[in-house]
Amino acid sequence: MALDTLALWHQAVKDRDMGVLDRLVADDAVFLSPAVHSPQPGKALVIKYLNAAQKVLINDSFHYVEEWHGDHSAVLEFALEIDGIKINGVDLIHWNEAGQITQFKVMMRPMKGLNTIIPLMAAHLV
Amino acid sequence: MALDTLALWHQAVKDRDMGVLDRLVADDAVFLSPAVHSPQPGKALVIKYLNAAQKVLINDSFHYVEEWHGDHSAVLEFALEIDGIKINGVDLIHWNEAGQITQFKVMMRPMKGLNTIIPLMAAHLV
Repeated sequence: MALDTLALWHQAVKDRDMGVLDRLVADDAVFLSPAVHSPQPGKALVIKYLNAAQKVLINDSFHYVEEWHGDHSAVLEFALEIDGIKINGVDLIHWNEAGQITQFKVMMRPMKGLNTIIPLMAAHLV
Repeated sequence: MALDTLALWHQAVKDRDMGVLDRLVADDAVFLSPAVHSPQPGKALVIKYLNAAQKVLINDSFHYVEEWHGDHSAVLEFALEIDGIKINGVDLIHWNEAGQITQFKVMMRPMKGLNTIIPLMAAHLV
C-alpha cells in the first residue's frame, strides 16, 4: 500500500520529528534548494537538507497557508517569521507510486527572507 | 459568465501581449513580488508589474513546466534562461467569482536567478 505522503509529511512537521524521512524519501530522490540551481541528489542528501530546513524554518510562527494537489505531487505554501523577518515560501513535492518523495523543491520570498534563511541553512549543512 | 482566467493568461503569455490584463485583473488586486514583502496594491500597479515581468521573463526559453489547480487559484511553475542563467519559479494566482485575478504572487530560485531578474525588473518599473 502506498504511503500517505502528505499526511506523513504534515505529521513530521507538526511533531518536529523528521524520523519518518527514512521510509518517506525514495533512494533516487533529489532536493532543489532556493539557493542554488544544482539538484542535490540521493536519499541521504535529501534527508540532510530536509533536516536542516526543519531546524531553521519550523518555529512557533511556521504554518502552512494553502495547498494545491496533483496526482503524485503537491504544492504547499508556508509562512513564518525569523527575528521579525517575514518569510513566505512553497514546497513543491513529487512522489512515486509507493508514495515515496522523489523530488522536494523549495522557493522562498522575499529577498530579505532568503538572505536570512540561507546562512542559517548553510550552518546546518557544513 | 466568469472569465476563463488561466486560458486568458496562457494566451497572453503565448502572444506576449498583456492587453487582456485590463479586463483580467480585479480593481482590488495585489501583486506580491519575489523581491520585497510588501504587497503592491491595486489594478494599475498589478498590471505595471505583470507588464514588467512579461518584458523581462518571457523570452524564447520561457516555458511553463507544471500546473496545480485549486478552486479559484492555481500554481504555475515556469523555467527560463537569461544570459545562460537558469531561472525556475512559480506564479501563485488567485481569482474571484468573475474570474478576475485578485492576487498574483511570484517566487523564484535560485539566488543567482533572482539576482539576475530583480535589477532587470526594477529597470522596467522606474
